[in-house]
Amino acid sequence: MRPLLALLLLPGALWAGGGGEKADARKAIRGILDAQVAAWNKGDLEAFMAGYWKSEELSFFSGKTKTKGWQATLDRYRKRYQGEGREMGKLAFSELDVDLLGADNALVRGRWQLALKKDNPGGLFTLVFRRLPGGWRIVHDHTSS
Amino acid sequence: MRPLLALLLLPGALWAGGGGEKADARKAIRGILDAQVAAWNKGDLEAFMAGYWKSEELSFFSGKTKTKGWQATLDRYRKRYQGEGREMGKLAFSELDVDLLGADNALVRGRWQLALKKDNPGGLFTLVFRRLPGGWRIVHDHTSS
Repeated sequence: MRPLLALLLLPGALWAGGGGEKADARKAIRGILDAQVAAWNKGDLEAFMAGYWKSEELSFFSGKTKTKGWQATLDRYRKRYQGEGREMGKLAFSELDVDLLGADNALVRGRWQLALKKDNPGGLFTLVFRRLPGGWRIVHDHTSS
Repeated sequence: MRPLLALLLLPGALWAGGGGEKADARKAIRGILDAQVAAWNKGDLEAFMAGYWKSEELSFFSGKTKTKGWQATLDRYRKRYQGEGREMGKLAFSELDVDLLGADNALVRGRWQLALKKDNPGGLFTLVFRRLPGGWRIVHDHTSS
């Protein structure tokens, strides 16, 4: 086989047969989610936001409200959880399901639970992760409670 | 190039350069959504459900409730919209955004609005479509209001 052809075939071949590649992708995605939970529980919203695509194209759906862009999503979190009389509480994710959609996208489903002083809100989330030059990032988040 | 290699390279090549392929995929997906709205507005839940993957693996998230499987999802719709004192009303989708994730998956975001006699519920949805042997189908639906 000519080297050029071998090169063209490589990514697909690695992916199709690559149990190791898939395991690495799942591990990277779970690592992002673990880092988000740890950051939240330290009260560090900027570190929590590192899991999201830093782009105007990031989309965040909650209830019937759309938020567009990384900065607007951070601002929304700040207002909701660091505003006057608000608290971040303790966050936990459970029932995580990471479903790889080809080599560069993943669907992640799970449940979120927040322990606040007077309330324990929780619900479901659907995340779409994309493999970007800097690593896997959430490009779309739909959360409901 | 040997015929076998040409064949192996074909799907990726078609996809990478295939504006026509992508347009066809988008059109097929929009066709499914249009058919769902038309079916709903005729009161035909079974036809509406034809847009979903007929599998135990179908997942449907609404608020904080998970429903698993095609039949359970149909049963949920029947109970909510065809039960005693219930009505299906008139459904409309808007703000549709079809984002192809490679050749075989798509992320679809949009807003739903239902006109009932005494209420007009609405909200957002995130759908993941997969290209299956029978065509594009919704494999995951997250809806919130």
